[in-house]
Amino acid sequence: MSIRIGILGYGNLGRGVECAVKQNPDMELAAVFTRRNPENVKILTEKAAVCRVEDAAEWKDKIDVMILCGGSATDLPGQTPEYARLFHVVDSFDTHAKIPRHFANVDAAAKEGGKVAVISVGWDPGLFSLNRMYANAILPEGKDYTFWGKGVSQGHSDAIRRIAGVKNAKQYTIPVDEALELVRKGGNPELTTRQKHTRECFVVLEEGADAVRVEEEIKTMPNYFADYDTTVHFISEEELLKEHGGIPHGGFVIRSGRTGWEGENRHVIEYSLKLDSNPEFTASVIVAYARAAYRLASEGQSGCKTVFDIAPAYLSAKRGEELRAELL
Amino acid sequence: MSIRIGILGYGNLGRGVECAVKQNPDMELAAVFTRRNPENVKILTEKAAVCRVEDAAEWKDKIDVMILCGGSATDLPGQTPEYARLFHVVDSFDTHAKIPRHFANVDAAAKEGGKVAVISVGWDPGLFSLNRMYANAILPEGKDYTFWGKGVSQGHSDAIRRIAGVKNAKQYTIPVDEALELVRKGGNPELTTRQKHTRECFVVLEEGADAVRVEEEIKTMPNYFADYDTTVHFISEEELLKEHGGIPHGGFVIRSGRTGWEGENRHVIEYSLKLDSNPEFTASVIVAYARAAYRLASEGQSGCKTVFDIAPAYLSAKRGEELRAELL
Repeated sequence: MSIRIGILGYGNLGRGVECAVKQNPDMELAAVFTRRNPENVKILTEKAAVCRVEDAAEWKDKIDVMILCGGSATDLPGQTPEYARLFHVVDSFDTHAKIPRHFANVDAAAKEGGKVAVISVGWDPGLFSLNRMYANAILPEGKDYTFWGKGVSQGHSDAIRRIAGVKNAKQYTIPVDEALELVRKGGNPELTTRQKHTRECFVVLEEGADAVRVEEEIKTMPNYFADYDTTVHFISEEELLKEHGGIPHGGFVIRSGRTGWEGENRHVIEYSLKLDSNPEFTASVIVAYARAAYRLASEGQSGCKTVFDIAPAYLSAKRGEELRAELL
Repeated sequence: MSIRIGILGYGNLGRGVECAVKQNPDMELAAVFTRRNPENVKILTEKAAVCRVEDAAEWKDKIDVMILCGGSATDLPGQTPEYARLFHVVDSFDTHAKIPRHFANVDAAAKEGGKVAVISVGWDPGLFSLNRMYANAILPEGKDYTFWGKGVSQGHSDAIRRIAGVKNAKQYTIPVDEALELVRKGGNPELTTRQKHTRECFVVLEEGADAVRVEEEIKTMPNYFADYDTTVHFISEEELLKEHGGIPHGGFVIRSGRTGWEGENRHVIEYSLKLDSNPEFTASVIVAYARAAYRLASEGQSGCKTVFDIAPAYLSAKRGEELRAELL
């Protein structure tokens, strides 16, 4: 029998989950839950239902894993504990500083409901975290580096759009090649914020807006841009939509460390992602962890888990014998 | 209390384990077991004992995890099941095709002894396997590529040394940059053996040996060299020892795949290692899994495990709260 998946929230991530479920023959999409009027929400999967979020509880016995596709700022802190009482759930909560608190809330709720909840799944947090953790355990004497990009930062794009006179904008975070090369050489360099990433902005102005002032406002914006070398390009809305319509992203996790009786040998572990679609890739990771949640639950487990707590084999549709024969 | 480690077999890998244990404050080296006369074996750790392999069983209650540092061809197939009856063990069995059988033998022995045995730990099999598995679970529609090097292949170096007229030799396996770039672009190319790797040999001849014949014998050697573009350099023994004395290695695991309703988006996941010392890095991975073996055993588990079966958190000396706060 297939693992029956529910999607709560049908934006970019929800659609990504829908596509990922299609690629996994041991799963099927049962229903999508939306805050919009279900009649106005068109989904891609023919056999799946579209329902009101308010009716989710009625699906308690018809869904094995509910995937929560809301945002970390306002949706997930409330939603994940709420739904973890009713369903096995997976979320992509990505506010790093608030993970310990989110974990505690979700853990209590999931244990109360006898459910498995996997939080902070995706690539960062998620696969990048896994790679930081493995590399730290293997090379205890070393240094971690995380670079993001080249990719679209939604938060930075939004920050530009809030400036008066800006009609639309897209911001790319770009890792600095020289910094990457320095790290790859294994010399454990100390790098400033400015040395690690640059920011490139494509901005569409409102008619009559002052380009010089907008550029100045972007480049001096605290936290977002002031600590970076930032380039601003003014383009037409048409060009923005045509050339910058995608949501690519990616990045690098590197740990360099030393071994030997006197630390005489250097090693570099590098993990990188190059993604055409950030939400679709994130969704693909989430769906693999939905399988893990289902299996852990089948073994009688409950409570909150992260990627650190789940043995890799649970993610795969293949049996242990197959994994050992084909991939070990 | 520290995790008490035993090392069985004190070659390059055994010494690597000794160095790795030193870097992990929650562990201590209790004893090294050798087939040589213990009086002739000098180890680096002052407080640890050097004992005869035959006396290992006497250490049953004084060692928490025994790390088996023998070779895959003749040592480990017998040793791992033998010692898994007495100790929690970790080995680096790396004959990929024979893993299923080794797993079955070790599993039976470990269950009989109520012990945890982790097999095939290192980087390939080991970290590379993990990355193949995670990437396959996340991108079910895609293609895997593994490249090795640049690094020393012991097997190929030995093969050259067996040729008449060869005094000494070192062989480097080198991934082809153009092939790597092609794979990174995400186009899922089909690559032949020759397109993926080249082989570079540094050879010291016996006095009076025929260089032309030796070079011909190397380049036409079936399995080892005939399917590759091979370069042979004749150098002095002095230069070999000075310039080619290390045991570096490394490699790349890449999966490229597609997501989207019609597979319209491409993604590339890449993992790579650049290692100054193959045995010391392998040992560092093994020692992290020794910690995992100890913890799994503390929870009452037994039987044979691979890297696929062990949740990442078991490898780290840090507690779950610390991992979530610092690395997630």
